[in-house]
Amino acid sequence: MKFNWQGVAVDGSARAGTMNTAHGNVPTPTFMPVGTAGTVKAMTMDAVRATGAGIVLGNTYHLMLRPGAERVQMAGGLHRFMDWPGPILTDSGGFQVMSLGALRKLDEDGVTFRSHLDGSAHRLTPERSTQIQHALDATITMCFDECLQLPATTEAIAASMQLSMRWAARSREAFVARDGYAQFGIVQGGTDPALRADSVRALLEIGFEGYAVGGLAVGEGQQLMFATLDATVPLLPATAPRYLMGVGTPDDLLGGVQRGIDMFDCVMPTRAGRTARAYTGFGQLNLRNARHADDLGPLEPGCACLACTRHSRAYLHHLFRAEEMLGPMLLTWHNLEYYQSLMRGIRAAILQQRLESHAGSLRRAWAGSGAAASA
Amino acid sequence: MKFNWQGVAVDGSARAGTMNTAHGNVPTPTFMPVGTAGTVKAMTMDAVRATGAGIVLGNTYHLMLRPGAERVQMAGGLHRFMDWPGPILTDSGGFQVMSLGALRKLDEDGVTFRSHLDGSAHRLTPERSTQIQHALDATITMCFDECLQLPATTEAIAASMQLSMRWAARSREAFVARDGYAQFGIVQGGTDPALRADSVRALLEIGFEGYAVGGLAVGEGQQLMFATLDATVPLLPATAPRYLMGVGTPDDLLGGVQRGIDMFDCVMPTRAGRTARAYTGFGQLNLRNARHADDLGPLEPGCACLACTRHSRAYLHHLFRAEEMLGPMLLTWHNLEYYQSLMRGIRAAILQQRLESHAGSLRRAWAGSGAAASA
Ligand SMILES: [Zn+2]
Ligand SMILES: [Zn+2]
Repeated sequence: MKFNWQGVAVDGSARAGTMNTAHGNVPTPTFMPVGTAGTVKAMTMDAVRATGAGIVLGNTYHLMLRPGAERVQMAGGLHRFMDWPGPILTDSGGFQVMSLGALRKLDEDGVTFRSHLDGSAHRLTPERSTQIQHALDATITMCFDECLQLPATTEAIAASMQLSMRWAARSREAFVARDGYAQFGIVQGGTDPALRADSVRALLEIGFEGYAVGGLAVGEGQQLMFATLDATVPLLPATAPRYLMGVGTPDDLLGGVQRGIDMFDCVMPTRAGRTARAYTGFGQLNLRNARHADDLGPLEPGCACLACTRHSRAYLHHLFRAEEMLGPMLLTWHNLEYYQSLMRGIRAAILQQRLESHAGSLRRAWAGSGAAASA
Repeated sequence: MKFNWQGVAVDGSARAGTMNTAHGNVPTPTFMPVGTAGTVKAMTMDAVRATGAGIVLGNTYHLMLRPGAERVQMAGGLHRFMDWPGPILTDSGGFQVMSLGALRKLDEDGVTFRSHLDGSAHRLTPERSTQIQHALDATITMCFDECLQLPATTEAIAASMQLSMRWAARSREAFVARDGYAQFGIVQGGTDPALRADSVRALLEIGFEGYAVGGLAVGEGQQLMFATLDATVPLLPATAPRYLMGVGTPDDLLGGVQRGIDMFDCVMPTRAGRTARAYTGFGQLNLRNARHADDLGPLEPGCACLACTRHSRAYLHHLFRAEEMLGPMLLTWHNLEYYQSLMRGIRAAILQQRLESHAGSLRRAWAGSGAAASA
């Protein structure tokens, strides 16, 4: 079978579709839970499946250091290793390596860096990153790119983007095509529309199965992120899936979909779940807050997750106060359920050509509890 | 319905039976997972159910301090609060208070102590402990007793046992009988057979629905523990359930059953699961050991738990090395599954009158991997 993305409905710039892969089909728009080190933190894979997630993300940087890409390969690949037979997208390691700061050294060929775990020296190049992602058996391989530390001058951003485009060509060269597998190019260029357009042209010339927008959600703010999407996404082919990397809040996801994005990933719902912060249809809650101590109602009425169907806010509050592991387990589950249910609702609205009114309802409900947002 | 225990088979001194309670029936012998603070650490209650556990334990000391017994009561009781509709046994708080050492002060009436959480002053008496256990809605309430710090003189052990017997009478007085609920007396007296016999006599004179053997597994060693059971258990009524508190290893459980014990609880399987130590039919394993890094086989072939049916030892090893929460989650699950499956196997052997040969097989298999035990 061929990897592809098939549109089933358009509503404004938003699209609903199905991504077909060697490891199964994924309705889009979709949110990908982050499984950094071969596990979605605090979740069993059965729980991840129960939320309705269609595809998960793995991190090349973390997995190459521990347990090692070849070890995962010998274990039958990441699908088998982590018990996720469905599609997996792996990042290229570029973003994580960038965040190492002084521990990394960049040259035209690639990046040399020291492991944050033991200080050992490693090297990533477009070829090695692609090879590692193949060893992990990633359904979707990402191009190895430079992720620039901001703030930076336009010249620096342009130079970095151009390096990333040369690396994209080398990544494509290293990619081994297999039925139902894909490689995505990554658009760079900061918040400069002209650089973004240059980047898109370069990627289209190479040609990928899908296109990601990288280098956003790094502190530029939602308005500038959305403006960059407005300038970039229309340049991408209508027939390929589009992935906004590392984004974001529920409102970011909604705005992304409204600008034509099909795929998202973010650590927010899982990280928040470990620190007692809940995402709900009526804004954010902090379950450690004392006002939940005697609240016998569910965290979010109508939510299908284990936390909401079986337990009270009072119980969740107790678990976090007692620092019991079940608190993060239940709240991560809820947050991932919320993100998946958000995407299901958005997709249904696109199919029914009512995304704008649906978006209005969502935003009013989120804002309606300004008090809850800071609770 | 009445609380009772009905024997269905006897094999030597071992018994198989069914304990009938207001919250359901429990086949015995049974192992009770410990849910200290209203959660079996690192487990969802669905996972606890999946292991086949029939009854769980809650801790009065922890729950009275946080979230507070009256708060649990207002939440509908511990069953509702923690999502365990089945039987719950609560300890009396006596054992935990003992371990506070300098933070506690004992008098004839009860114990005053300071919370290990915030230093606040609290008091437990036989009446208050019983009242708290009622507020928690414990299916089985334990008598409030003194748990002496060892080593101690025979005189001190005798005096402590006699105080516990006076407290047992007051606990019984405070107990509110309800259909299907029970209160267990606790035999004390150290490892002195005469004191144990005195204690049994005192408890039988008061009369309880079940009897526990307390004050063991506190450092006296398995041989002395078994000798004390040999001297004590035959004195207990054949028609009431017998509970050996805080015990123990798989071999302790087997030896306890062979001496007529029906119920056990211990933090070992859950605590070990959080520190990478697995209990298996062929001894203990430490999953952090490097020899598991490339082992693609299951932790324990044939085990029905999520860890063994879905994952390799290599994956479990990776999770513990990466300090991922899923490691403790999966290994706690496995250990509780192992304990439940051990009890199921022992019960089946009793029913088939072949416990002695079954015990021999179990012990040979545990010992057969002396290497694995220290791995
Ligand atoms: Zn929920
Ligand atoms: Zn297992």
